[in-house]
Amino acid sequence: MAEIIEPRVLKGFRDYLPQDETARRALMEVLERVFRSFGFVPIDTPALEYAEVLLGKGGGETDKQVYRFKDNGDRDVALRFDLTVPFARFMAEHVDELYLPFRRYHMAKVWRGENTQRGRYREFMQCDFDIVGSDSASADTDIILLISDAISALDVGGFTLRINHRGVFNRFLDSLGLRDKSVPILRLVDKAEKVGSDELRRLLSAELGDASAGKLLGYIAKESGFEATLEKIEGLAGGPAADTQRLRDIWRNASAAGMPGSLVLDPSITRGLDYYTGVVFETNLDAMPEIGSVCSGGRYDELASLYTTKRLPGVGSSIGLDRLLAALDALGTVKRRSGYTQVLILDVEESLAPSYHKIARALRAAGIAAEVYPEKKKLSQQFAYAERKAIPLAVILGAEEAERGQAQLRDLASRESATAAFASGDAAELVARAAEILARRGA
Amino acid sequence: MAEIIEPRVLKGFRDYLPQDETARRALMEVLERVFRSFGFVPIDTPALEYAEVLLGKGGGETDKQVYRFKDNGDRDVALRFDLTVPFARFMAEHVDELYLPFRRYHMAKVWRGENTQRGRYREFMQCDFDIVGSDSASADTDIILLISDAISALDVGGFTLRINHRGVFNRFLDSLGLRDKSVPILRLVDKAEKVGSDELRRLLSAELGDASAGKLLGYIAKESGFEATLEKIEGLAGGPAADTQRLRDIWRNASAAGMPGSLVLDPSITRGLDYYTGVVFETNLDAMPEIGSVCSGGRYDELASLYTTKRLPGVGSSIGLDRLLAALDALGTVKRRSGYTQVLILDVEESLAPSYHKIARALRAAGIAAEVYPEKKKLSQQFAYAERKAIPLAVILGAEEAERGQAQLRDLASRESATAAFASGDAAELVARAAEILARRGA
Repeated sequence: MAEIIEPRVLKGFRDYLPQDETARRALMEVLERVFRSFGFVPIDTPALEYAEVLLGKGGGETDKQVYRFKDNGDRDVALRFDLTVPFARFMAEHVDELYLPFRRYHMAKVWRGENTQRGRYREFMQCDFDIVGSDSASADTDIILLISDAISALDVGGFTLRINHRGVFNRFLDSLGLRDKSVPILRLVDKAEKVGSDELRRLLSAELGDASAGKLLGYIAKESGFEATLEKIEGLAGGPAADTQRLRDIWRNASAAGMPGSLVLDPSITRGLDYYTGVVFETNLDAMPEIGSVCSGGRYDELASLYTTKRLPGVGSSIGLDRLLAALDALGTVKRRSGYTQVLILDVEESLAPSYHKIARALRAAGIAAEVYPEKKKLSQQFAYAERKAIPLAVILGAEEAERGQAQLRDLASRESATAAFASGDAAELVARAAEILARRGA
Repeated sequence: MAEIIEPRVLKGFRDYLPQDETARRALMEVLERVFRSFGFVPIDTPALEYAEVLLGKGGGETDKQVYRFKDNGDRDVALRFDLTVPFARFMAEHVDELYLPFRRYHMAKVWRGENTQRGRYREFMQCDFDIVGSDSASADTDIILLISDAISALDVGGFTLRINHRGVFNRFLDSLGLRDKSVPILRLVDKAEKVGSDELRRLLSAELGDASAGKLLGYIAKESGFEATLEKIEGLAGGPAADTQRLRDIWRNASAAGMPGSLVLDPSITRGLDYYTGVVFETNLDAMPEIGSVCSGGRYDELASLYTTKRLPGVGSSIGLDRLLAALDALGTVKRRSGYTQVLILDVEESLAPSYHKIARALRAAGIAAEVYPEKKKLSQQFAYAERKAIPLAVILGAEEAERGQAQLRDLASRESATAAFASGDAAELVARAAEILARRGA
């Protein structure tokens, strides 16, 4: 016999056992339903692309995090590290085959050689959705309403979606003559939540002096409500303009669509430095603010300027599936399950296997997931299997039962049994009884 | 402005535009529903693994088809080229955390540097399902019944699942004293369908002489039905044994479960040479036999002997998703769609955007997929968008309609219009009318 190879996965990679994979799928199915209800369509792109396409022309000094290599045809290729860059390439390549505004979602794996010491994975599922080809408050609103519907559908309690607009902040910095310092300022403001307000004041003072620091802190403070905050920053930024009108329109749209008090204008939200050009937003779960934003995004002027001269403005967002899954887990609302089987037909008597398969088929035809235990093991072993798989109901049909034309139905939680006629030609009564018991148990 | 990078994908790779991706997803959703109804659970494994794990210790003379490289940590890694090897590694690694018999399905991408001149892709979706940990006719039957249900659910007309057993064939070769020639014989018989019976006779005669060739051809010929063929090969192989009993049991089980005449015993089925040890099978669509088997598989003694000394017998199958999708396409039964939106709310008057989002929300709450056109373009342009996306119904609400408290509902196929009250506080009537029209249209 050949030497055994140790079965192991790479550091930072993981298998999904049924309990994890069913939970991940349940989450993705909910999201997919919401995406579709908002008119979003799915796309897919290759996992592997030209390194030049993913990393740009200057991709020589490659990020250590990128899985990049030469393929067998000596092409310089890389595994995608996000879904944004491939989407930009996709839009530039296919814009004439599509229609604008284009609403797409994409849930797929990406790979990054992250430092695994911080508990990060090197392979993970990303979930992006965007509306490309429209620069309007209505499109911005749709992304926000979608996030609201998605989180509501996940049954994780309240949430807060904090929004801001880059343009208003830039106007405010202009008015203070601080526009040239916007990069370090944004960087500091971005830390506001982490460092606390006293430390932020100290850092800002060191950078800008006490007076400007005070004004900045006044600007980023939230007022009693969306509209009050909006009026304040509008005033501080020099009065009404397209940017504040945009925020006002989004607020009106979202309010009309009943977004229930969860939309907050927060002038301290910045979302990185370069990419976004309009609104930006983050979403926190009220029950778990400490895990950070589970859904962030914003508006950009140019999705695909690396690949096309066509202007493709858009608004989009990304859901952190792993983070959300961890939250669902901690809140106990995750649909982690060992299986989907509702009825296990035990193997009591091998010669009765044809009857077992017939019963299983009749159950499935009635929409009940059913499996036949495939060999005659001890009943205790078959029950243990049912328990491991959390199967609620068993059908027991031995020689004796078969002779009487009666099968036993056993509720595996309550251990109660019922009998149902099982004539050789017909399993209708058995199916009806099984459906009844399952409905009663809510299984 | 920086130089534009040409947006393109690698040879043998492809993007999935909405029309293709919706079709692929529709297919996968049907399969997933059937898998779950048979008690199968989903798993996932990493796309990237140690090359040693995927290719074995002697993986030095690597197949050109494998994407293999050194990662940033200088590990010898490779992209998976099928789902069987990772599953074997998975079972060896996790068998103690799972339960046996273990029924799993796995739909995921694999990568092979195929010759693209033959129209092959280098990235494609694989779909595998297995029952591991049981060597029984009941488990064999379940795989076959699952295939039957899956193909029936896809609405592609009749199909033929041809099954055979390696053991019976080997006994027959023994009886002729030809066991040492089993490899070339299996190879020739495997070609039977391609070369035709005359050419097969010529080839077999050249290899074995006329007498043995004649006996072989007699053996692999189908009789009038499953049982008649079984009796014939049982006789030729030296009488009843476990292998023929297995075929008989499968036939009984499948017949009891009403598999309608589509299960055929075909002694010419061989399915390659090494891996399978018991039953083997192939599935052809009656409407498109020329595309070959859309679902093949068989029984194996040892799933994971490379990674563990534990014996893990099983039975499984693989669905060729791309092939099946091509067949569905050719038969016109594929659910290729431009989107899921049922109602488009036109943007007629920008100031009414809050009302548009309110209507959309009310429709979604009633289970109707609705989107708001995000900016005030010409109506002809908005209608063209609806047509591109195959949206059946539009809501038109301009200033005039809003004043009268009436929105217009337009059926975009028949161009008929209806009006529905839209009071500022309530979109119930509009939702009800929309639901009615959609139900009538079956959309």
